[in-house]
Amino acid sequence: MLQMLFYVAIAVEAMTAALAAGRRKMDWFGVCLLACVTALGGGTMRDTFLGHYPLYWVGNPYILLLVCGAALFTIAIARVVDKLRWTFLVLDALGLVVLTIVGCNVAMEVDAHPLIVIVSGMVTGIVGGILRDVLCNDVPLVFRSELYATVSIVTAAVYYFGVAADLNRDIVIIVAIAVGFPLRILALVKKWEMPKFVYDKDL
Amino acid sequence: MLQMLFYVAIAVEAMTAALAAGRRKMDWFGVCLLACVTALGGGTMRDTFLGHYPLYWVGNPYILLLVCGAALFTIAIARVVDKLRWTFLVLDALGLVVLTIVGCNVAMEVDAHPLIVIVSGMVTGIVGGILRDVLCNDVPLVFRSELYATVSIVTAAVYYFGVAADLNRDIVIIVAIAVGFPLRILALVKKWEMPKFVYDKDL
Amino acid sequence: MLQMLFYVAIAVEAMTAALAAGRRKMDWFGVCLLACVTALGGGTMRDTFLGHYPLYWVGNPYILLLVCGAALFTIAIARVVDKLRWTFLVLDALGLVVLTIVGCNVAMEVDAHPLIVIVSGMVTGIVGGILRDVLCNDVPLVFRSELYATVSIVTAAVYYFGVAADLNRDIVIIVAIAVGFPLRILALVKKWEMPKFVYDKDL
Repeated sequence: MLQMLFYVAIAVEAMTAALAAGRRKMDWFGVCLLACVTALGGGTMRDTFLGHYPLYWVGNPYILLLVCGAALFTIAIARVVDKLRWTFLVLDALGLVVLTIVGCNVAMEVDAHPLIVIVSGMVTGIVGGILRDVLCNDVPLVFRSELYATVSIVTAAVYYFGVAADLNRDIVIIVAIAVGFPLRILALVKKWEMPKFVYDKDL
Repeated sequence: MLQMLFYVAIAVEAMTAALAAGRRKMDWFGVCLLACVTALGGGTMRDTFLGHYPLYWVGNPYILLLVCGAALFTIAIARVVDKLRWTFLVLDALGLVVLTIVGCNVAMEVDAHPLIVIVSGMVTGIVGGILRDVLCNDVPLVFRSELYATVSIVTAAVYYFGVAADLNRDIVIIVAIAVGFPLRILALVKKWEMPKFVYDKDL
Repeated sequence: MLQMLFYVAIAVEAMTAALAAGRRKMDWFGVCLLACVTALGGGTMRDTFLGHYPLYWVGNPYILLLVCGAALFTIAIARVVDKLRWTFLVLDALGLVVLTIVGCNVAMEVDAHPLIVIVSGMVTGIVGGILRDVLCNDVPLVFRSELYATVSIVTAAVYYFGVAADLNRDIVIIVAIAVGFPLRILALVKKWEMPKFVYDKDL
């Protein structure tokens, strides 16, 4: 089931990237490339940090076709996408939580330190979106919008401690999703934000 | 011969990076650094993705001197560069094709999946230019200009299938160049572009 | 002693990143993330280039807490930071030199080529600031401001040749700091810059 959700998460990241590409009037190739960077960038950075080779998409290259397929599908349905705003936000929230859990799993496989497990989950969850924003020449949204990375950290912590407590893995996955997913949705609905740090002097 | 063309390709990438640096009024060090990132970034990312150590410029560090030399030479000839516009574009087209072939070779050495061979060629060919544009604070050109990445993909595909069909390696190299190079030149002359995806709503 | 200075250097990089984050009105999480990327990005890139696993912060994850602590501390003292301008610049200069030496050490441990030792020192010293500027959507300062990377290169060269000449390691460290640190301070005070390359035509 986690595997299925993982593919959904990857596809959703690809679709949000395609929309960002469309806002920058990129060509179809640029849409696919931005989708790959966004959907696969987090896992790639995690695998690189952990020295975990082969990278997951190098070991399973068909995932590239899934990503490009999802991106091109987004072009096809662009006219109706704005009616799907909430579908996207809900799937994106689910994707964030699922990618985080997958990232924790990879770090736990290599017996990483608990802090690294949580960082690994977070990197998997949020780095794709950061790379997307950098390539679109924006300051990454995750640095200042509604709770997003925080959701990833909370999910990773719940998941890590559940697994460390030797609970049934499937139950821990469900609990982690049941904590992280509604937290993100609530953050969106209630516009929960972290406090901002505003500093306007030059050093 | 491929090795010679590879050095030419690296030097040309360094020179186009130097011009981009000049447009941003960077200092001489910035020119060299941007040239290194542009000329070596694609191969570095490919080697990192494949876990192919040592990175090629770590194993052959004199290539750094070649890159910095080409960058500083560009500063010296800056006055006449605009008369060399087509020389640059032609050499850049050749460089794209050559770097792609080199990238495919590295992936084939480690017995990668065909899709990964093509991605490896493309990453080697286009990532340097993307990093250059990000460091210059532009949306990467490759996402929306004339056929560029597509040329890289076509070249990589021709090369891969030629080698897979067990043809003579030198002939396959020549055929891949003979397909990719004129394709890029034609794309420049005729202003061939991929269709654009334009989406102007916020999600 | 180098280890202590290294932690100071990391903390100072984190604090300058926090101020940059404040100028972009990032939230507290964004402040911590930007601090991690800035303080640890150079060493991460060096370790990745050298294939030197585990990455130093993966092997010693408490450094993440140091970085986040320094970043949050900066938020707490933001009101008085502008009175500390020179403290920051002095500590940042010290940090640059120390990180460079640490970077050289890592490359020498794996018996890298002298050129790679110097590049390794420089990457460790300056890449964090480049990543910070890219994430803040600026053209990296290091490409065009007062001598900064040059200081790193000079320090690395002094250190490398000292160690290669088989001098006492502690003395070489002190000499390298005694060369690089005042050089950076002088560059700041006297506004020493590299010559700029200005090119204003499109290719």
